[in-house]
Amino acid sequence: MNLGILIFPDAEELDFIGPWEMAGMWNMVSGVPERRLIVGESGDPITCAKGLSVVPHVSFDQCPQLDVLLVPGGQGTRKEVENSALINFISEQAKKFESVLSVCTGTFLLHRAGLLSGKRATTHWNSLDRLRSLGDVNVVEERVVHDGNIWTSAGVSAGIDLMLAFIAKTADEETAGKVQFASEYYPSAIRYGAAHHSPVAPGYLKKTV
Amino acid sequence: MNLGILIFPDAEELDFIGPWEMAGMWNMVSGVPERRLIVGESGDPITCAKGLSVVPHVSFDQCPQLDVLLVPGGQGTRKEVENSALINFISEQAKKFESVLSVCTGTFLLHRAGLLSGKRATTHWNSLDRLRSLGDVNVVEERVVHDGNIWTSAGVSAGIDLMLAFIAKTADEETAGKVQFASEYYPSAIRYGAAHHSPVAPGYLKKTV
Repeated sequence: MNLGILIFPDAEELDFIGPWEMAGMWNMVSGVPERRLIVGESGDPITCAKGLSVVPHVSFDQCPQLDVLLVPGGQGTRKEVENSALINFISEQAKKFESVLSVCTGTFLLHRAGLLSGKRATTHWNSLDRLRSLGDVNVVEERVVHDGNIWTSAGVSAGIDLMLAFIAKTADEETAGKVQFASEYYPSAIRYGAAHHSPVAPGYLKKTV
Repeated sequence: MNLGILIFPDAEELDFIGPWEMAGMWNMVSGVPERRLIVGESGDPITCAKGLSVVPHVSFDQCPQLDVLLVPGGQGTRKEVENSALINFISEQAKKFESVLSVCTGTFLLHRAGLLSGKRATTHWNSLDRLRSLGDVNVVEERVVHDGNIWTSAGVSAGIDLMLAFIAKTADEETAGKVQFASEYYPSAIRYGAAHHSPVAPGYLKKTV
């Protein structure tokens, strides 16, 4: 399996490094995916939304056919939806990949690449209305949404849950459990302050407060 | 506030990007920390434990006095405990910093820098016995441990909980709540498979299964 993670200027760091870490642990516990690649438009370092500088492993031109593509979100997506090279990269890969995953506002890049029409999908709580306004997406306010070979998740940290769910489905639950144990992903249930009581909190969160 | 995150070859990606993201959101919601720096021994790109290549913002020589230093873990720590330049960087910064945080096996780097003797601290579940064998650390099997100005956490993903707890203490709970909401950190409670029932699971996890 070739797993590629697409990055671009102002991609949100945890959106893609959460899943990157889970995929790395998956490889550690079971040898899959055999290749894990950070993909950029060129091979030059890319400055992410919070200022981290990451060097892609391959450029679009160098990237092999991927079996699984993950697309993060971040402020950069608002510009990248107009980047035809990036949108074409997604749609060309889509002709042959097995699965595509997006985190947070990465959903909007999948939509622009023509992959979400009529599909169930989600995004960061602050962009749910914007996703609905596209008119052709069945917006679901869950943390992880799976529709055929298209997986989308809520914002930023939700990419970790997304990748674990994908591993559980693609390999099996025991493998996902080994990844979860290796990365010690048994998060605190603490909810600080009152922000999560906001009326714009996503549906899955409102169900629990 | 100057926040520095130390990285080195084979540092574990999520160990430092989890806290990096939370610190970036902290800056977004309240303007603090004013500076957030990835610090490497030189300014050259560093390959992390799962293969991600990150370019430090500053080298040890260029790094200003930090108010807060975060030290991640990863396989690289086993080599870096013998790297006097790195250990000296920590111990020199320690003369003036306000707080130090470590994630996972970053604990062993703090210990080598002389910061943990007689202190309560923790690490990744797979290194708890090794931490106990040092003889002078009061090893606590909690997810986040706070002893004076020294904060340590369990493995890999626990750095997210560590940084949120640090923000709640240093700023206030409402600010931590805004960071948690912005990063949509309301993780799934799913535990896949049976790995977490292992007899070597950490104490805080055993209490919940």
